[in-house]
Amino acid sequence: MGKIRTDFSGVKLLVLDFDGVFTDNRVYVDQDGREMVSCWRSDGVGLSRIKEIGVKTIVISSEVNPVVRKRCTKLGIDCITGCKDKLSALKKVICEQGLSPRDICFVGNDLPDLGCLKYVGHPVAVKDSAEEVLKVAKYTTQREGGSGAVREVCDLIYKAHKKTQ
Amino acid sequence: MGKIRTDFSGVKLLVLDFDGVFTDNRVYVDQDGREMVSCWRSDGVGLSRIKEIGVKTIVISSEVNPVVRKRCTKLGIDCITGCKDKLSALKKVICEQGLSPRDICFVGNDLPDLGCLKYVGHPVAVKDSAEEVLKVAKYTTQREGGSGAVREVCDLIYKAHKKTQ
Amino acid sequence: MGKIRTDFSGVKLLVLDFDGVFTDNRVYVDQDGREMVSCWRSDGVGLSRIKEIGVKTIVISSEVNPVVRKRCTKLGIDCITGCKDKLSALKKVICEQGLSPRDICFVGNDLPDLGCLKYVGHPVAVKDSAEEVLKVAKYTTQREGGSGAVREVCDLIYKAHKKTQ
Amino acid sequence: MGKIRTDFSGVKLLVLDFDGVFTDNRVYVDQDGREMVSCWRSDGVGLSRIKEIGVKTIVISSEVNPVVRKRCTKLGIDCITGCKDKLSALKKVICEQGLSPRDICFVGNDLPDLGCLKYVGHPVAVKDSAEEVLKVAKYTTQREGGSGAVREVCDLIYKAHKKTQ
Repeated sequence: MGKIRTDFSGVKLLVLDFDGVFTDNRVYVDQDGREMVSCWRSDGVGLSRIKEIGVKTIVISSEVNPVVRKRCTKLGIDCITGCKDKLSALKKVICEQGLSPRDICFVGNDLPDLGCLKYVGHPVAVKDSAEEVLKVAKYTTQREGGSGAVREVCDLIYKAHKKTQ
Repeated sequence: MGKIRTDFSGVKLLVLDFDGVFTDNRVYVDQDGREMVSCWRSDGVGLSRIKEIGVKTIVISSEVNPVVRKRCTKLGIDCITGCKDKLSALKKVICEQGLSPRDICFVGNDLPDLGCLKYVGHPVAVKDSAEEVLKVAKYTTQREGGSGAVREVCDLIYKAHKKTQ
Repeated sequence: MGKIRTDFSGVKLLVLDFDGVFTDNRVYVDQDGREMVSCWRSDGVGLSRIKEIGVKTIVISSEVNPVVRKRCTKLGIDCITGCKDKLSALKKVICEQGLSPRDICFVGNDLPDLGCLKYVGHPVAVKDSAEEVLKVAKYTTQREGGSGAVREVCDLIYKAHKKTQ
Repeated sequence: MGKIRTDFSGVKLLVLDFDGVFTDNRVYVDQDGREMVSCWRSDGVGLSRIKEIGVKTIVISSEVNPVVRKRCTKLGIDCITGCKDKLSALKKVICEQGLSPRDICFVGNDLPDLGCLKYVGHPVAVKDSAEEVLKVAKYTTQREGGSGAVREVCDLIYKAHKKTQ
C-alpha cells in the first residue's frame, strides 16, 4: 500500500477519468475504425460496495467514442463524455449535488485531469500517470489503470468509511 | 512450484470461477457494449487430461454475459452463469453428483469465491487474487489467470492421480 | 530519460512508422482475417500539442490494412500506407513541404525504417527496436511503441521548442 | 542470444506450431464464441527473408478455428489445421518434399509438439514452453511466442545460411 496523505472517510462522491483509469490507456482499433477498450472485471465489486455505503460514482471523460458510455452502463454508474473542460463539468456536478470540493475524490492520469485534481480534496493518480499528475496527487495507486486501480480506490474508501462507523 | 498444502489425488470434481481464473480478469468492451475475454489455449490440453482419468470439471460464474458459456462450450465443460450465490450452486452440484466437500477442488480469485473456497477440501487461489482469497487457499498458482493457471491446477491433479495409481 | 544526442528544437516535421511505434507491434487477427491493433490514448494529447506550435506529423507505413488509415484519421494526421519504399516516399514529402532532411524527426523500429533513419537529422528508435535500428538512432524512447513512445517524442519536441522561444 | 546447440545453416524447411508460437498462446473469445489471436507484425519480415534464400515454411496446428488459416494466408505460408497427429502430418510433408528429418527445424511449445520435436534435426522451443518441450529443444528462443519468437528463428536461419555462402 502506498503512502496515503488523505482521509478517504470524508469522500462523498467518487469522480473518475475513464481512459487510463478504468482502462490500461490502450485503445484497440479495427479496420473499420471501431474502438474497444480493456477493463478490469473486479472493478464492479468495488463500485458496488461503496454504493452500498452511500458513496456515488461518476465518470468524466473527454473521449467521444460510445465505448465509455457502454462500460459505465454495465457498471451502473453515471458518465459525462466528450467533455472538453473537465473542471467546469466537475464544478457543475458538485453544485448540483450540494457538495463541496473537499467531499470529492477525483482519479486521473494525464494533463487534462490536472484542473480537477487540484480542485478536489482527495486527488488520486493512477500508477504510471504523467509526472505533473503524480505531483498533485495525495495518493498514487499501487495497481495500474485497467488492472485494479479503480477497485483499489473503492476498497480504500470502503474501509475508511467502515472504520469511522 | 508453490507450497502445496493439500493432496490433489483426492480431487473428484474441479470447480472453477471464470473471470480471473480462465481469463486475466480483463474484459474487452467495444463501442456497442459487446464483450470479449482473453483465455489460454493450453488450458484445453490440461482439462482433457483430467477428463481422461475421470475428474469432471464445472464452471460457476456470476457473470451474465454469454462469453462465459461460449468458452466453456469450446472446452467441453459444463457451466453455471449469472450465479448470485455461488456456495448454494456448489452445494447443489456436490449433492447431485453424490460427492462430499472433501472431493472438490475450487479455484477462485475474488471475494464472491470466499464461501466456496472455505467449504471445499481443496481451495486454490490463482496468483494475484484478493488478499482474503489468498488467506484461505491451500495452494496458490504460480501462473496467473488466463496465462496457465487452469492448466497448472489440471496438471497437479493429473500427476497426483497418476502417482497413486 | 535516455541520452538525447540531438536537438529536437530543430524539428519541423515528425514522420513516424505505424506498427511498433503507434502500436505494440502486435496485430489482432480474427477468424475472418479482420485486423485490429492496440494504440495509446495519450498519444493524441502529445500530437495536439506539437501541432499547436507548428510541427506537422505524417505516418509512412508499409502495411496495406486500412487499420492504419483509420487510426490516423482519428488522430487528425496524414498517412501514406502500403508503402514499399519508405525513403522515396519520405524524400517526396520533404521536397513538397520545402524542407531539408535536417528538419525531420523520423521514428521507426525495424529494418524497413533503416533508410529513412539514416537520411534524417533526428532519427529516433522506439525501445525494443531491431538492433540495426537502435544503432543508427540518436534517441531511443523510454516507453515502448503503443505504450507512450509517440507521446514521449512529442513531449521532447514540444519542450525543446518551448525552451528556444 | 541463448545457447544454440544446432547448426541452422542445414535447415531446408521451417515447420511451426501456431498457438503459442505465432501467438502469445491467448485466444480472445467474444460473446458469440468468435475467436481472435494476437500476432507479431515483424514475423512477416523474417519469413520473407528466409523465403528469399530458399527456405520454405509450413504451419501444423491442431486448432480447428479458421483464424490460423487466415493469419497464414496473410503471411503467404502454407498451413495444415485441425491436425490431431502432428508427427504423421510432418512425416508426410517431409516425404512429399523429398527431405529428411535432419533438414527440418520444428518450433513448438506444448505436449502435442513433442513427437515432432524429437523427430527433427533442429528442434526449437519458444520461451515459456512446457517443461517437457524445453528438455528436447536444441534452442530456446529469447523472445516469447507472438512477441518475436518466429522472427528470431527466421533471423537465426537467415544468418546461418548467409555465413555458409
